[in-house]
Amino acid sequence: MNPEHLKSLLTKVQEGKVSVEKALKDLKSLPFEDIGCANIDHHRHLRQGAPETIFGAGKTVAQIRAIMEKMNEKKNNILVTRLEADKVPPLRKAFPKAKYQAQSRTLTLTSRAIPILGKGTILVVCAGTSDIPVAEEAIVTARMMGNEVDYLYDVGVAGIHRLMSRREKLYEAHVLIVVAGMEGALPSVVGGLVDRPVIAVPTSVGYGANFGGITALLAMLNSCASGIAVVNIDNGYGAGHIASLINRV
Amino acid sequence: MNPEHLKSLLTKVQEGKVSVEKALKDLKSLPFEDIGCANIDHHRHLRQGAPETIFGAGKTVAQIRAIMEKMNEKKNNILVTRLEADKVPPLRKAFPKAKYQAQSRTLTLTSRAIPILGKGTILVVCAGTSDIPVAEEAIVTARMMGNEVDYLYDVGVAGIHRLMSRREKLYEAHVLIVVAGMEGALPSVVGGLVDRPVIAVPTSVGYGANFGGITALLAMLNSCASGIAVVNIDNGYGAGHIASLINRV
Amino acid sequence: MNPEHLKSLLTKVQEGKVSVEKALKDLKSLPFEDIGCANIDHHRHLRQGAPETIFGAGKTVAQIRAIMEKMNEKKNNILVTRLEADKVPPLRKAFPKAKYQAQSRTLTLTSRAIPILGKGTILVVCAGTSDIPVAEEAIVTARMMGNEVDYLYDVGVAGIHRLMSRREKLYEAHVLIVVAGMEGALPSVVGGLVDRPVIAVPTSVGYGANFGGITALLAMLNSCASGIAVVNIDNGYGAGHIASLINRV
Amino acid sequence: MNPEHLKSLLTKVQEGKVSVEKALKDLKSLPFEDIGCANIDHHRHLRQGAPETIFGAGKTVAQIRAIMEKMNEKKNNILVTRLEADKVPPLRKAFPKAKYQAQSRTLTLTSRAIPILGKGTILVVCAGTSDIPVAEEAIVTARMMGNEVDYLYDVGVAGIHRLMSRREKLYEAHVLIVVAGMEGALPSVVGGLVDRPVIAVPTSVGYGANFGGITALLAMLNSCASGIAVVNIDNGYGAGHIASLINRV
Amino acid sequence: MNPEHLKSLLTKVQEGKVSVEKALKDLKSLPFEDIGCANIDHHRHLRQGAPETIFGAGKTVAQIRAIMEKMNEKKNNILVTRLEADKVPPLRKAFPKAKYQAQSRTLTLTSRAIPILGKGTILVVCAGTSDIPVAEEAIVTARMMGNEVDYLYDVGVAGIHRLMSRREKLYEAHVLIVVAGMEGALPSVVGGLVDRPVIAVPTSVGYGANFGGITALLAMLNSCASGIAVVNIDNGYGAGHIASLINRV
Amino acid sequence: MNPEHLKSLLTKVQEGKVSVEKALKDLKSLPFEDIGCANIDHHRHLRQGAPETIFGAGKTVAQIRAIMEKMNEKKNNILVTRLEADKVPPLRKAFPKAKYQAQSRTLTLTSRAIPILGKGTILVVCAGTSDIPVAEEAIVTARMMGNEVDYLYDVGVAGIHRLMSRREKLYEAHVLIVVAGMEGALPSVVGGLVDRPVIAVPTSVGYGANFGGITALLAMLNSCASGIAVVNIDNGYGAGHIASLINRV
Amino acid sequence: MNPEHLKSLLTKVQEGKVSVEKALKDLKSLPFEDIGCANIDHHRHLRQGAPETIFGAGKTVAQIRAIMEKMNEKKNNILVTRLEADKVPPLRKAFPKAKYQAQSRTLTLTSRAIPILGKGTILVVCAGTSDIPVAEEAIVTARMMGNEVDYLYDVGVAGIHRLMSRREKLYEAHVLIVVAGMEGALPSVVGGLVDRPVIAVPTSVGYGANFGGITALLAMLNSCASGIAVVNIDNGYGAGHIASLINRV
Amino acid sequence: MNPEHLKSLLTKVQEGKVSVEKALKDLKSLPFEDIGCANIDHHRHLRQGAPETIFGAGKTVAQIRAIMEKMNEKKNNILVTRLEADKVPPLRKAFPKAKYQAQSRTLTLTSRAIPILGKGTILVVCAGTSDIPVAEEAIVTARMMGNEVDYLYDVGVAGIHRLMSRREKLYEAHVLIVVAGMEGALPSVVGGLVDRPVIAVPTSVGYGANFGGITALLAMLNSCASGIAVVNIDNGYGAGHIASLINRV
Repeated sequence: MNPEHLKSLLTKVQEGKVSVEKALKDLKSLPFEDIGCANIDHHRHLRQGAPETIFGAGKTVAQIRAIMEKMNEKKNNILVTRLEADKVPPLRKAFPKAKYQAQSRTLTLTSRAIPILGKGTILVVCAGTSDIPVAEEAIVTARMMGNEVDYLYDVGVAGIHRLMSRREKLYEAHVLIVVAGMEGALPSVVGGLVDRPVIAVPTSVGYGANFGGITALLAMLNSCASGIAVVNIDNGYGAGHIASLINRV
Repeated sequence: MNPEHLKSLLTKVQEGKVSVEKALKDLKSLPFEDIGCANIDHHRHLRQGAPETIFGAGKTVAQIRAIMEKMNEKKNNILVTRLEADKVPPLRKAFPKAKYQAQSRTLTLTSRAIPILGKGTILVVCAGTSDIPVAEEAIVTARMMGNEVDYLYDVGVAGIHRLMSRREKLYEAHVLIVVAGMEGALPSVVGGLVDRPVIAVPTSVGYGANFGGITALLAMLNSCASGIAVVNIDNGYGAGHIASLINRV
Repeated sequence: MNPEHLKSLLTKVQEGKVSVEKALKDLKSLPFEDIGCANIDHHRHLRQGAPETIFGAGKTVAQIRAIMEKMNEKKNNILVTRLEADKVPPLRKAFPKAKYQAQSRTLTLTSRAIPILGKGTILVVCAGTSDIPVAEEAIVTARMMGNEVDYLYDVGVAGIHRLMSRREKLYEAHVLIVVAGMEGALPSVVGGLVDRPVIAVPTSVGYGANFGGITALLAMLNSCASGIAVVNIDNGYGAGHIASLINRV
Repeated sequence: MNPEHLKSLLTKVQEGKVSVEKALKDLKSLPFEDIGCANIDHHRHLRQGAPETIFGAGKTVAQIRAIMEKMNEKKNNILVTRLEADKVPPLRKAFPKAKYQAQSRTLTLTSRAIPILGKGTILVVCAGTSDIPVAEEAIVTARMMGNEVDYLYDVGVAGIHRLMSRREKLYEAHVLIVVAGMEGALPSVVGGLVDRPVIAVPTSVGYGANFGGITALLAMLNSCASGIAVVNIDNGYGAGHIASLINRV
Repeated sequence: MNPEHLKSLLTKVQEGKVSVEKALKDLKSLPFEDIGCANIDHHRHLRQGAPETIFGAGKTVAQIRAIMEKMNEKKNNILVTRLEADKVPPLRKAFPKAKYQAQSRTLTLTSRAIPILGKGTILVVCAGTSDIPVAEEAIVTARMMGNEVDYLYDVGVAGIHRLMSRREKLYEAHVLIVVAGMEGALPSVVGGLVDRPVIAVPTSVGYGANFGGITALLAMLNSCASGIAVVNIDNGYGAGHIASLINRV
Repeated sequence: MNPEHLKSLLTKVQEGKVSVEKALKDLKSLPFEDIGCANIDHHRHLRQGAPETIFGAGKTVAQIRAIMEKMNEKKNNILVTRLEADKVPPLRKAFPKAKYQAQSRTLTLTSRAIPILGKGTILVVCAGTSDIPVAEEAIVTARMMGNEVDYLYDVGVAGIHRLMSRREKLYEAHVLIVVAGMEGALPSVVGGLVDRPVIAVPTSVGYGANFGGITALLAMLNSCASGIAVVNIDNGYGAGHIASLINRV
Repeated sequence: MNPEHLKSLLTKVQEGKVSVEKALKDLKSLPFEDIGCANIDHHRHLRQGAPETIFGAGKTVAQIRAIMEKMNEKKNNILVTRLEADKVPPLRKAFPKAKYQAQSRTLTLTSRAIPILGKGTILVVCAGTSDIPVAEEAIVTARMMGNEVDYLYDVGVAGIHRLMSRREKLYEAHVLIVVAGMEGALPSVVGGLVDRPVIAVPTSVGYGANFGGITALLAMLNSCASGIAVVNIDNGYGAGHIASLINRV
Repeated sequence: MNPEHLKSLLTKVQEGKVSVEKALKDLKSLPFEDIGCANIDHHRHLRQGAPETIFGAGKTVAQIRAIMEKMNEKKNNILVTRLEADKVPPLRKAFPKAKYQAQSRTLTLTSRAIPILGKGTILVVCAGTSDIPVAEEAIVTARMMGNEVDYLYDVGVAGIHRLMSRREKLYEAHVLIVVAGMEGALPSVVGGLVDRPVIAVPTSVGYGANFGGITALLAMLNSCASGIAVVNIDNGYGAGHIASLINRV
């Protein structure tokens, strides 16, 4: 409800074109829909050029299905994240066009073609094989939000030549997402090589004094390279989302 | 040293235009300068359209001056961060054109005009009065990197109407930097209002179970809003830097 | 055993109306009942206008049943919290009038009508769908303690308009319980809008650097809004209890 | 801006009694005042029957004085917390009627008589001599907000008879604030004795594995007694504030 | 190998009664027995008047049985701690006289009568019903080490009268073991009532900000009462052991 | 107030030898003295054969002097701990017989001869030179409580022969206090050598990942030796106190 | 690609013996092989005289088999660590010569004889029976890297004579690996006895305030003995690897 | 006291060449010297080819001087670490030949020529200018222990070309010490480039979520490169010591 809209509404009230009751209602009504356990905010997702998103962890198949049905009425594209494989068959039965990406545990339902909104390529760089599921979640998210996405896997800093030999890919990207567990050093090296914004994603890969990703998280926050910002541990979705917003600035 | 450059160099060796020794040296020489205690990387800063930057904390006046003199030879712009006020007079004596911003504890020496490289406005939003020094560091950095910067202060979430009444400013920005201490909730609220990338900066403002900014840091990493990435506690410089890179994508 | 009671007792001893032995016993006997593994404090719960409460986690069906039987002899109302669903059928067989609320995992047995003791409405505000079980535990508790309870769900700060559009409900409540996981920012926003006491309940909803609710807990303790106090992570029962005491002050 | 107000405003616009411009301004103007580094929210404090409050830590005398002058224009009562003794003389020179309480490090300026708004007594219970400054901050705050306040000092649990012999005071209070450092056990004992809401305040008193109050904070959050909620470490002001709101419910 | 023994040995070498080789061997041989995966130290346990003890957690039935057989050859009494119930039947088959205490998860095999070595009673005080298994482990241990043991259960600080009414038991004990989870306040109250050494045992009972017993552990280490020392979380065995040593001083 | 006392009092009331008012007062009066900021519990200290103790840290000279004067009226022995050297001269002026032990920062005033109450020797074992101040605090405390005390310094585990060559001292002690910083391993080694109770005291000596004594504290709590209990970091007083109680069992 | 190699290559380009294209390719090609999900670095392992190693945790049998097949093509020796027993049969079917060590959960496939590269013996010292699996992983690794390995088990510091009686073994080793859980004190004692480098390995053995090995890790980092360095919790492989590199210096 | 020595001693006793008393004394006397507050272990340091070392932090000039004098009697070389500059003049007055290295805060007194005991070069690699003091402490230590030492400064991973261009130095070293603060990534990169043992030293350089070096420490412990072991934060001395032992294996 921006000022122009407000002024216009008030003018119509003044002119008698809109009743007080109608204006009162308009001023109160906001673009979300209450389905009991959730307030679905259709406009927001469209406004951001994003799919409507459901965080699948901890929700039952029935709950996810109910929310998807409501979203599907408007033919919005849908992205379900953190969806365990055993919940997929009943959802695919209800939405036969939905596709499941097993590695990233994402389900996508694409009812509208996704236009390319991003200005350049988003490159997802991944330190180790075990970090790939998080990287894939970022990739699926960025593609659903209208981006060209490329990737570079298993280029951790312990074998720095693997990264250095593919520097061209790094230089060509507009936005970079760097995913790493263990000591989380990769974003620092990548951030020192490129002039583009780097979104760092710590993963929970590791053991012992890794503390479920805290080590990687802290390392990324303390990076000696500039041009890096960090999202939560294992938050591939969040990285894909902000990278998409950056790619449209 | 990109592939084209490498190919060109090898071709010249083949053609006898460049000697093996010269090529060997070129392949080894890299664009930094060793002044004993530090390797100054002139090209990197220019390449990123950034000033040459010195992290002032823990350095003596003599060290800072030595590094500034080397940088100044190339007439590059210089930004010194975390510079205590008592170190300023001798540095200003050596560099009379340098300017000191007391609140952000930054010293700037602008030898070249700074072109506007950013596509839109970077807006710095700040929760409380005590968070202003960190916000100012972000502003100085973003300006030195060629951006239009605007700001909004003392709009913490405990008085949400203060923020809501200035929503237009939020909507107009291309990139947002949100600075907050204590419970660190402001980026979540701002992130829910805008469709632009938000860089969240936790500050060490608070007491007791605040733990020097950890509470705000954790809150920002766990934000329920999408489109947010986080930098280290009190890292105004880092936020200004990545926001500048984003504003040029 | 207040002073008047004591004085009266001593006077009766002086007058020979009560023997030394009887007085000695009275002075030692206290209003609890030892059933071996537990000392049941019947008076306390009645005194507070509260149901007798059993923390169900980690107790066997046999133990819970034994305690319930003892409580039921006095026809006190009973509330069992944190009761897993698989323990319900045998308990319902023993106490056919008992009701189980699956979401909050509470079992209630209401043998006496519950009078309304609270002066106004207790409003339970809940940030996300996943926080609802904790909110429901607070609601069941507050109702068992004689309060009118209302609620507002899925109004997290990332979509602040969802909260702002229901401000009237906030203004009408006498006491507010605000339940949130992830970054735990909702109590700060609510606390800034109302002039009533706010009991904040962090939940363990989240992942990564959420640390099982620590982030939300710390955020609530560091709230920049006044008028907020905090209970343990996921402690819906505790919030409902203190809110009920507040509502009778 | 409640619905009645909004409806009234819209009706006046409809009737031509209020111009569109005026309505637009009203809808945007909110009851705070921007003095550059701070947005002073005069109405909120009056609305809550609270003094206008300045968190003194980290502010210069000049800043505090500027804010006090603005507040004083409206003859609102003023409370400055966490004010170091060396900042007091210049402030007392500017505001000769201001009073400084050295133990609690609070400055109060009472321009309007404070009516008693609380329904009963607020009792502040304090475990050890070293916890008294925090207790005093709570007392000053509660008195400035219109409450009768009583207190009980040095009644820590290691000498439980000291507390038990003053039980009558505990029973008479309407709201209790319990302040304790070290192991933070006092709120649990007090909470078990009374039927009134208890606000627990952990202090940073202790050493070694006390961690600046974390031990007391955790102990209070995990209290086995019901009817307890907790504020931040050393937050006497916050405890006094919420206790005052509770005392008016 | 005390000095007298050493002197005697050397004298025998001097007198030719003991050969160099024999002396060399004696000087090296120490009173333990190597059975491959473990060095069993028979003498130590006898020396301390303690049973031979096996920490059962993480050992297979075969391993426990092998160690028990070796111990049983010398007819020493045996105590197995942290033994899951499913491992008991095969062990009882091998050692029909062994007894299993289900609550404390201990198995005892008493081949020699246990003389009373302790000077007085060890009293085990326990805050809540859920802490009983840890208390029972302490009781079994203290009994196996030759002590009279008494106990007091469910006397947590939230109902302080339950403890106060049994003060006589506290006064009569020579050594006290106080077991508590949640906020761990009970040892502070008990320590303030008695003049005897108190061994405090934190338990992992609790949830949320209890962190598996850390809260209780910290509270006990920070007790404002003197005369308290602390063992590891859930370490009933350790408490029983040191209490037994104390009871013989 | 034990049962016999109570019975006797009630009998006297019955017989008219004691009035109701007098009995009422007796039942309420408890053996402590309220001097405003502190409740001095004279009887407790005498009952425990302990000096009256003042924790000096954070108290002013005036406060300490006032408490000492009150204590001195009864000619009780006095121990002031954690007393900075600059506070000593004025206190010594007021109490010329008081003695200050600089290393342990304790002040003692011995008005009554201290009888030996302990059954054997308390041995204080200390890992490094920097741990001596904590060890000395334990020694002064144990001596003030009537014990023979011996000590063994600089016998840390990195030079195990230093400890092994003085094993006789270890074997002769009745109670052992083992003080260590850094990795805190000494109590485990000592605990494995003796059959007596060991009180372990972690110190804050160390740097880096020592965390002000947490490492030593954790190591002692996790000791693989039995017969060890732990007090707070740097708590020499607490160790001396409980060791004294143990030495009288 | 060392300088001599580079010079030789450039000289050949100059002489026309190598084409620009070939040189360009050589300069870019690096000694690893991309098999999709992993970049296998054959040369590195050979260069270090190490087997090719696969971290088995979290990989499927199919993934491990695919990587092994690629490695086996070059007849390199292979070491799989952290391999659960249920994955072994299918791998042994594919590689019948592979051997599984159940305790250390390692699989080894030795296609080439392993020459002894180490200068002396590596001794693995182990505190408790439960630490043996980690010790065994170190042993297998060190043997695969060409070392003579000896070991000493169950010599924890609580029975220091068990260690002291085998001092000769300690003195004879060239490099020592010391494995301990619980309080992690063993490396300090061993480090004080020998003049050789000690690699300390904390294990996750313990409970309560052990925090999954953090206590042992911190104790080892804070060792008062010199000559000790530490690897991650439970990282037997890492200890075996660096000990092997040390043994060849 | 090795077995051969012991056998020889016993034989002499048998032959009457050594008296029982003399043998008894020899068996008890151990090579350290008790000077009251410290047990100086002269032999150990000589045995390890190390200087006698004093940890200067927290010791007075008088204490350091007393220990140095005792050490100097045997003309052993002396190294004092963590010595603040203001303590140097009086020590240099007492020991005019002593030299102070201001950056590393070390004092060295070299009375005997230091033979080269190391087999190759120890290379100290340092991430940032602020890490140099820790690196210098390692260098001084390694030189005092008889090693050739080289170094490489300001080669942090954010400018990876600075490191890559000096790879030859890395390849030539026999042992590497890698010093880094902030995110602590440098050891991982170096460890991936060399086949030699790497000792990683985290420093406390950094701010915010660096936590005084914990981030760097954790990153190094979790390194994805093999061949790395870690010492305590800022422990340059410890790194120099173990690197020296390694260099002699």
